[in-house]
Amino acid sequence: MGQLVENSQPAVTNISKASCPCILENLSVVFKVKAPDAKKVQIDLGKLYDMTKDDQGVWSVTTAPQVPGFHYYSLVIDGVKVADPASESFYGTGKMSSAIDIPEKGADFYQIKDVPQGALSSKYYFSKVTNGWRRLFVYTPPGYDVNTKEKYPVMYIQHGGGEDERGWAEQGKTDIILNNLIAEGKAKPMIIVIANGNVSSGRSIGGYSSAGMAGFKDEMTKNIVPFIDKNYRTLADAKDRALCGLSMGGGQAFYVGLESLDYFGSVGVFSSGIFGGINNPIGKEFDADKEVPGLLSKSQSFNEKLKLFYVSVGEQDPRFEFTKKAVKKFQDSGLKVQFNSFPGDHEWQVWRKSVHDFASRLFK
Amino acid sequence: MGQLVENSQPAVTNISKASCPCILENLSVVFKVKAPDAKKVQIDLGKLYDMTKDDQGVWSVTTAPQVPGFHYYSLVIDGVKVADPASESFYGTGKMSSAIDIPEKGADFYQIKDVPQGALSSKYYFSKVTNGWRRLFVYTPPGYDVNTKEKYPVMYIQHGGGEDERGWAEQGKTDIILNNLIAEGKAKPMIIVIANGNVSSGRSIGGYSSAGMAGFKDEMTKNIVPFIDKNYRTLADAKDRALCGLSMGGGQAFYVGLESLDYFGSVGVFSSGIFGGINNPIGKEFDADKEVPGLLSKSQSFNEKLKLFYVSVGEQDPRFEFTKKAVKKFQDSGLKVQFNSFPGDHEWQVWRKSVHDFASRLFK
Repeated sequence: MGQLVENSQPAVTNISKASCPCILENLSVVFKVKAPDAKKVQIDLGKLYDMTKDDQGVWSVTTAPQVPGFHYYSLVIDGVKVADPASESFYGTGKMSSAIDIPEKGADFYQIKDVPQGALSSKYYFSKVTNGWRRLFVYTPPGYDVNTKEKYPVMYIQHGGGEDERGWAEQGKTDIILNNLIAEGKAKPMIIVIANGNVSSGRSIGGYSSAGMAGFKDEMTKNIVPFIDKNYRTLADAKDRALCGLSMGGGQAFYVGLESLDYFGSVGVFSSGIFGGINNPIGKEFDADKEVPGLLSKSQSFNEKLKLFYVSVGEQDPRFEFTKKAVKKFQDSGLKVQFNSFPGDHEWQVWRKSVHDFASRLFK
Repeated sequence: MGQLVENSQPAVTNISKASCPCILENLSVVFKVKAPDAKKVQIDLGKLYDMTKDDQGVWSVTTAPQVPGFHYYSLVIDGVKVADPASESFYGTGKMSSAIDIPEKGADFYQIKDVPQGALSSKYYFSKVTNGWRRLFVYTPPGYDVNTKEKYPVMYIQHGGGEDERGWAEQGKTDIILNNLIAEGKAKPMIIVIANGNVSSGRSIGGYSSAGMAGFKDEMTKNIVPFIDKNYRTLADAKDRALCGLSMGGGQAFYVGLESLDYFGSVGVFSSGIFGGINNPIGKEFDADKEVPGLLSKSQSFNEKLKLFYVSVGEQDPRFEFTKKAVKKFQDSGLKVQFNSFPGDHEWQVWRKSVHDFASRLFK
């Protein structure tokens, strides 16, 4: 759609040159699509919006004001959910999905700035767990190529359900966030490993439990960590390794991280549903001491090994109250935990802030 | 669509776990989409196929046998061209587009193999031409991180129209092709730079001419080459630099490369329309000596500076005969040129073979 809407900004998530979807000053979004022969066209942005057709066959709608952050959405054409051709696509919700990034006033921690730039590389490795080649991304901090004697701590960070290794690389803007944090002196220069947590083969039986995550644990500890330690200049010990993740990846960090403290000295759990909330994946009251044996009853032994145990969640996320309750139990048992929350629901702006916050507390 | 079609293979370009589109033994493709409320659903795979609906509301079609290679396609729902939710999306044809990669029997040069793996990194740089941050990809060969005294030659490679820097990184599988070539000893270890050739600001007036490409030329010579020479261990002279590209990028390599021989000692032109063919972008009989002054009349001065001038094209591409005719004129004028052609039309399998062939002839 060529015409600009007055007092609007094309979304940064649009494909090159697309002027719509565009964002009004009140953060309402105007969507447009040409579909003269369709009977019904809608936008599914969490809430479903019916679009109306003009005499040129262009359907449009102006949504209610949106919360700042990164929202997946679909175009629904005569009942079929598809990506909007005007948007970039991102692997999320189990498919290549459109998304709109609503800017947050004053928040520029995830914008590219004129600071030393690290690099984000893709690498292939052979997994003995899934018996195939897999891709991961590796962030190396500014100076990595030049300071060839220096070794770095490593953060391993996992995506959510219906996403893959592209999540933290693209939606999450992890490289940009770390470039900025390191330039400000707020985070240690570190390597970040962004792997694919969808490990369906091996010992994994699926689900949120130690047994369910056995395949992922094998993948992480037997394939990925050794591959990274072999191919990058890492500080190869638990105190210089962290495992964190969002939603499903937060569950993985919780179970696999806390049960592999010989590998990971720091664990970060962002917006996990394991503590409760809608679609509580464990389907029962969360009993931390049972899920990770001894976590509450032998909290001191965890405190001794854990340099940092971090939990975060969005304040409008249905998981918020459940997460706070779980954190309180951790604290009551004497388990050291650092907790933070951010405005927002279950979406990437909260996770960008989570990695920004977690990385700034790590390896200190 | 969950059900497997008998004697078929899901396309490698499908999203994780999608069983359709799938490829039959004769290279016909079965497409399926659930759309109970749509009036008409089609697949646009160059040729338009009408799909038929079953009593479950699932539309399907089996296409004619397809040529091996990478083909963009769209789903057309009641007249609206969209990406197929069952496919990965690739930036091509000016939007995020579905594509199907039809395997070529016996061709494994672009498959991941158990050989030393280089890395493909994304980097941001500030362009004084477009006055903004831009992204490029950099391939560094196996051993780059370890052999910290070694300097490498650099190939700059450009995408086609409606594509961007993702083309050679994703569709082109350039990193995998080079890993394999280097492991076989058929290509020199080299750095490859994959930039965004859509330079709409600056001096560029657009179109296929030296003047039209002035913006891209500035971007390449004033921003990108200095950025790479500063940030990577390059052999920073013309004889160790190549510029090549496909289609629009082939035109850029032709004009900018041949007119910047102080920068680029080797030039590769893959499937360019400048020589003629459908949609001949220069819209007139191709006069090489006028387009690049002296190219034919002073061919010896070009021969002295050019280490390699390479032209390739698909044998079913409408540009084929025109390209051969232009190459013959180059040869008749005494201009040294290496020419190759590959089975296929204007698509990525030809371009994968072109970079494979070009890289194996470079820097020798």
